[in-house]
This record gives sequence, C-alpha cells and structure tokens, in this order.
Amino acid sequence: MIHLEQALQIILSEVRTLPAQRIQVLSSLGRVLAEDIHADFDIPGFDRSAMDGYAVMAQDTCPATSDQPVFLEVIADLPAGYQTAKVLREGKAVRIMTGAPLPKGADAVVMVEDTKEKEDRVRVFRKVEPGENVSFAGEDVKKGELVLKEGSFIRPAEVGMLAALGKENVMVRRKPTVGIISTGDELIEPGGRLEEGQIYDSNSLALSSQVAKCGGTPQRLGIVRDNKEELISRIQEGLSFDILLLSGGVSVGVYDLVKEVAEEAGVKILFWKVAVKPGKPTFFGARNHTLIFGLPGYPVSSMLNFENLVRPAIYAMLGRKEKRVQVEAYLESSVRSKGKRRNFVRVKLVRERGEYRAVPAPSQKSGVLKSMVWADGFVIVPEEIEEIKKGEKVQVQLLD
Amino acid sequence: MIHLEQALQIILSEVRTLPAQRIQVLSSLGRVLAEDIHADFDIPGFDRSAMDGYAVMAQDTCPATSDQPVFLEVIADLPAGYQTAKVLREGKAVRIMTGAPLPKGADAVVMVEDTKEKEDRVRVFRKVEPGENVSFAGEDVKKGELVLKEGSFIRPAEVGMLAALGKENVMVRRKPTVGIISTGDELIEPGGRLEEGQIYDSNSLALSSQVAKCGGTPQRLGIVRDNKEELISRIQEGLSFDILLLSGGVSVGVYDLVKEVAEEAGVKILFWKVAVKPGKPTFFGARNHTLIFGLPGYPVSSMLNFENLVRPAIYAMLGRKEKRVQVEAYLESSVRSKGKRRNFVRVKLVRERGEYRAVPAPSQKSGVLKSMVWADGFVIVPEEIEEIKKGEKVQVQLLD
Repeated sequence: MIHLEQALQIILSEVRTLPAQRIQVLSSLGRVLAEDIHADFDIPGFDRSAMDGYAVMAQDTCPATSDQPVFLEVIADLPAGYQTAKVLREGKAVRIMTGAPLPKGADAVVMVEDTKEKEDRVRVFRKVEPGENVSFAGEDVKKGELVLKEGSFIRPAEVGMLAALGKENVMVRRKPTVGIISTGDELIEPGGRLEEGQIYDSNSLALSSQVAKCGGTPQRLGIVRDNKEELISRIQEGLSFDILLLSGGVSVGVYDLVKEVAEEAGVKILFWKVAVKPGKPTFFGARNHTLIFGLPGYPVSSMLNFENLVRPAIYAMLGRKEKRVQVEAYLESSVRSKGKRRNFVRVKLVRERGEYRAVPAPSQKSGVLKSMVWADGFVIVPEEIEEIKKGEKVQVQLLD
Repeated sequence: MIHLEQALQIILSEVRTLPAQRIQVLSSLGRVLAEDIHADFDIPGFDRSAMDGYAVMAQDTCPATSDQPVFLEVIADLPAGYQTAKVLREGKAVRIMTGAPLPKGADAVVMVEDTKEKEDRVRVFRKVEPGENVSFAGEDVKKGELVLKEGSFIRPAEVGMLAALGKENVMVRRKPTVGIISTGDELIEPGGRLEEGQIYDSNSLALSSQVAKCGGTPQRLGIVRDNKEELISRIQEGLSFDILLLSGGVSVGVYDLVKEVAEEAGVKILFWKVAVKPGKPTFFGARNHTLIFGLPGYPVSSMLNFENLVRPAIYAMLGRKEKRVQVEAYLESSVRSKGKRRNFVRVKLVRERGEYRAVPAPSQKSGVLKSMVWADGFVIVPEEIEEIKKGEKVQVQLLD
C-alpha cells in the first residue's frame, strides 16, 4: 500500500505530453494551449475614444463650467471604424463615437452628456484633463507581449483574447483518448434485464463522463466477463488508447487474473493498493505510452480514484496547470477515520449567514453512489487524524 | 438606469421553460433533468458481500481468535453475478466474492485476510458480528425513492446514478438556441486584415463560448454594419432563436438605430441601462418567447453582463437551479468605486498559508479584456460602498 503522493509520482513519471494540433479558435473552448501567444500588435491598435462625445484639446475646455460653457466649432463627425484626415486645432472639436480613433491634435474627449450642440457649434459645460475618456493604444495588450502561456486552459475569456489578437486558429494539445473496460460477471448494460445477483454497469458511464469533463475523449469498450480470453483481447484493444481504465477486477480473486492478463499483454504493473479511503484496491501500470488504471468496482471508489489519480494524469498529458479551489466551511457533523488511509469524505455545501457548512453525506460507504450525487466536494481527513469534530473549520475541495 | 435585481426580475418574467426531450444517458452530461427520477428497485437489489471472503453465520465465529480459529466446511463458491441454491447451516461457509449475493442462512462475511483455507475447510481467526461486511439491499437507493429531482444539473455522478437505476434514456431540457450578432463598422473577423481604426470582433466568440459553457447552443450570425437595412434583416433572422444577443450597438448614437430597428421588428424594449460597472449601457427586450439582449461593445462589459443577465436567463429556460460558490479571500489592494453602480472587480485568487488573497487585475477598465483572462472571479462592490481597503475580507464569486 503506497501513499497518494507516491502513487501520483509514479503515474506522472510515465506521462508524456501529447502532441499539439491546430484548431479553430471558435472550437477551442475547454482545450489547453500548446503554444505561447504573443501579441503581433497593440490592443487597441490606436488611441481611441472611450465615450460618445467630442474630441477636443483639453486646454480649450479649461475655463468651462456648467454656467459658463466653452464654445467649440465641430469640424468633423467620426463614427467607430473610420478615421479623419482633419487635424484638430485650437477652438475646434470633432464629434466622436465610442471606439473611434482620436483625431490628430485631440488629446481628450468630452462626454456627450456634458455638451450641447447646435448648428456645428458645441457648448462644453465641463473641463476635461488631457487623456480623459481616451483609451490609449496598447492599453489592453502591448505589441510583443506574452498574453497567454502554453498550458493555459481555454475559457471564454481566452477565446475572446485569441480573437482580439486576430487569431483564427490556435495550437492546442490533442485530447487524450481513454478506453474504458468494465469487468465483472455481475454487470448488465443499463436498459437490459436484471437477474438476481446482477447490477447495472454504472461505473463505465460515470468514468466516461469524468473523462469528457476533464478534456479527454472517452470510449466505452463494453463489459468483459471474468474470463481470460475475453480479457486478453479487450485489454489488447485498450492498449491502443492513451489511457486504459479497467473498472472492477481488483478484488483479491479477480485481480490475479487481470494482473496476469495485463502482464501477458506487456503491461508493467507499477503499483497495487493506495492508502486512500475509499479506493484502496487500485493498480496502475504502463505499456509504452499507454497508462493502465485498475479502478475498484465500487462506484464511489471508482469516481474518487479517477479524481485523485486519473485526472492528474490527463492534465499532465495536456500540460494543463491545475488550480483547484478550496472552500472553507464548518463541519456539520463529526467524521471519524480509522487512520492509515487518507479519507475523502463527501460533503454538500450549505450557505448560511455568510458562511458555509459542510454536511457529510449520510452514508460514506464506497458502494453508496448517492453520496457522490449528494456531494459538492470532499473534506480530506489526513492519514494521521482519527476524527474531525462537528463545528471544526475544514477545507472543502470542490468537485466541479 | 435600473438595479441589477430589477433587471433580473424583468428578464425572468419573460422566460418560459424550454420543452423536454429524451436523450441517451451517456450523452446527458452537462444537461438539466426535465423529470423526477424515482428508483424502480433497490440498489443493491440484494444483500451482498462487501468483501472477498467467506459467508458465514456470525454466531459460528463467536469463539474464534487468532490463536484458536474456528473450523468451517466450505460448501460452495460464489463469484459476483451468480447465486447458489444452497442454504448455509451451522458449521458451514460459502466462499464468496465482493458483490456476490449473500447465500440464504448467512448473515455475515469473514474477510479472506482473517481466514486460511485447506481442502474445503476454512479456519476463521476472527469473530464477526451479524451484518459485518454485508451491503444490505437498498443500502444505496430504496425502491420508490426520489433519487434525482427535475432541474438537477447532470454531472458524472448523476450519469452514474441514472445508469445504476437501469436508465438508458432520460428526459432533459432542450438546449436554448442563442443567435449572436456583432454590430459595428469598426469590426473585422479574426484572421482578416486590420485597417487603421478597426479591431477584431472578439465579443461574439467570447459570447459564443459563454453560451456553450452554460448549456446553450450558440450560433454566430456575423458582423453587421451600423446600417438600418442590414440590421433589420439580421435581427429578423435572430428572432428565430430562443435568445438573441446583440454585441455593441448600445453607444448613445447607435442605440437609437438598433432600438428603432428592434421595435420595427416587433421587439418590446423592457429596460435600457443597468446600474452595474462595467456594463451600464445594456438593453433588454422580448418578442414572443425570444429574449433580446443588447450588450455593450466593450469586451469586459459584454462578458460580465452575460454572466449577470444572460446566464440566469439560460438557466431559467433550462429550469436549472443555480449554486454559485463564493470563496473568502483577503483583498490584496484597495478598490475604489464611485458608487451608484454595483462594481464587479476582477480578481485572481492566490493561495498562501491556507488562505486566499484576491488580487485585482491591474486595469479594471471595461476595454481591457486581459482583466478577464486574469480573473478567477470577481469581488462585488455594492452600490453604497465607495472603497474596500487592502486587507479586508471579501467574498469572491467564482467565474468557473
């Protein structure tokens, strides 16, 4: 039995970063940048008006007050997207729209609300300072600047930024392919008819969704009975993926068979049993660049070990830097832990008077999938701690 | 200028919940349940072994210790997925695998680690209590129980639960369709060539990504010049969507045109200008069941008003109950607000010694898209507050 950190270290040492591919920026949401993005030009590319109003020389407005306006002559009209060859001189103004380039000679914009125009003469009721209501070239991004780093996760803001930089396409990491095999003679495909002693295969669907959610391409390879020939052929098929997940087949009896078959297929088993609760009976192996995870058949164990072991592997393949948010909360009821294994207690967050309470799922058994439906996240009880008491302050690691 | 709450109230009063559709459970990740899900049967459906070991009558193991084992006769072998007609009697045991149904007569399971078997006789070195290492029928879900409520957001755990309940298909809300029009003579499609005074259209791509992220189906309808005929035909096209987003066209000059065109197309404008910063010049209207949002051209204003106004509309159409997590942090530098408008300050979260610091983006201008790239979330400065000082405790509303 090894610690979670050791397990992760072994896994990450087998990961290779996936190759990059060029895709459309519009389809890049949720992908991971495979290149540094520098700006080829300033954004904005020119000094522009930040308001609808009048471009002026600030000094002309110096004496203006609400009682004693300054009169300026309007010499041009400048909507966004256009420019004027006219140069602004003393006593003149250019009617200007938000986003239009500041005409030569102007150094400020008076908001339309502070003016009154009549027959090409505008009365200005308020003094402006040089630079007022002007967005200067490069205010957002400067030419040559490193705007987005390789490894960035692409959210809507990054999509917008790539577009603002004029990019139509962008290099991202290829999505890891993940094959998922369910093992067990007791499993029936959802929709099928259950006989006594059988259950529906839920793990491969939950795992498939977890893979999709963290940026991989899942493929369910079906249910395999606990028999050697079937296992061999399915595992061989699974080795063509970047990651192969085996769900179930880690109980003492079946593990020996799965291990034997995996090793016959050239897989090197690198660890077996991790000091986590739930989820101890988990193995990990590798063949060439394919990572193989044997996850427990219990649905909660399977999902949590995906979170704790497989997701970090997927992120590493993508070169994605992770930033999981933790939320402070007060524990609603005591949780006990036998020690030795790190315990992941599923909790719901309830907000009350500006604080969160972390309410543990009524059953924390690894067979109780409802505890994952219940959970917004989990409270981690370290190996050396036997109890966290009701009312204690805890950190909740969010699931989403 | 109306308050955000008023604006939301007006918007939500125009929303109708979208119709339901039946889809495959495997494709239901990220969708919203349009039906209550009750269990048709217990999960597990039978009392089963929680461990690999031996099914026994607990009382038989009463005298067992590590020095003085109890001997039992092994009468059957029970892998998961199978059952035995044999009934356990005193002095007998059944070799049983995790997940296999408990044979009749047995009331506990001894872990394999606490036994030694030889020639169909097993020595038991530890006493078990009745029920020990047994998962009872209905332990996870009870027949008839309401397991998932209409309006639930479907995460991997919900996908798994639906599968465990035997569902192949499930009723979800249809995704709202969202048409996106960019308006402005200054806009150029990314990849095109910029002339002086022009910028790339980034808003429609960012909005498109925001729509996709919160469960809608975006469609970009292209860039429209500030001219009446083009606007009319494009807005008419846009009215076939559940939601129509206009990006730009809300500056004083252009708004009059957009408003005129929208009203000619039968759109009733319901508000114009919201007391938020950034993002004040925003309008909202409706025609039949189509909602129309006029969002500011500034990229930050556009994205934030999507978050504050459009996302709630999409969630309401989906019947999705929202649960936004807030994180407590200490403000890294003071933020000032002129009051009157609620201010959304973009911050990055930095964790240090078990606490978060909220670091405001260096520029909070509405034209600085980099502040959205910077941000993990925002600190909301209420209308009546003029300053939050460095070091004060704040709540950060997460963007993701």
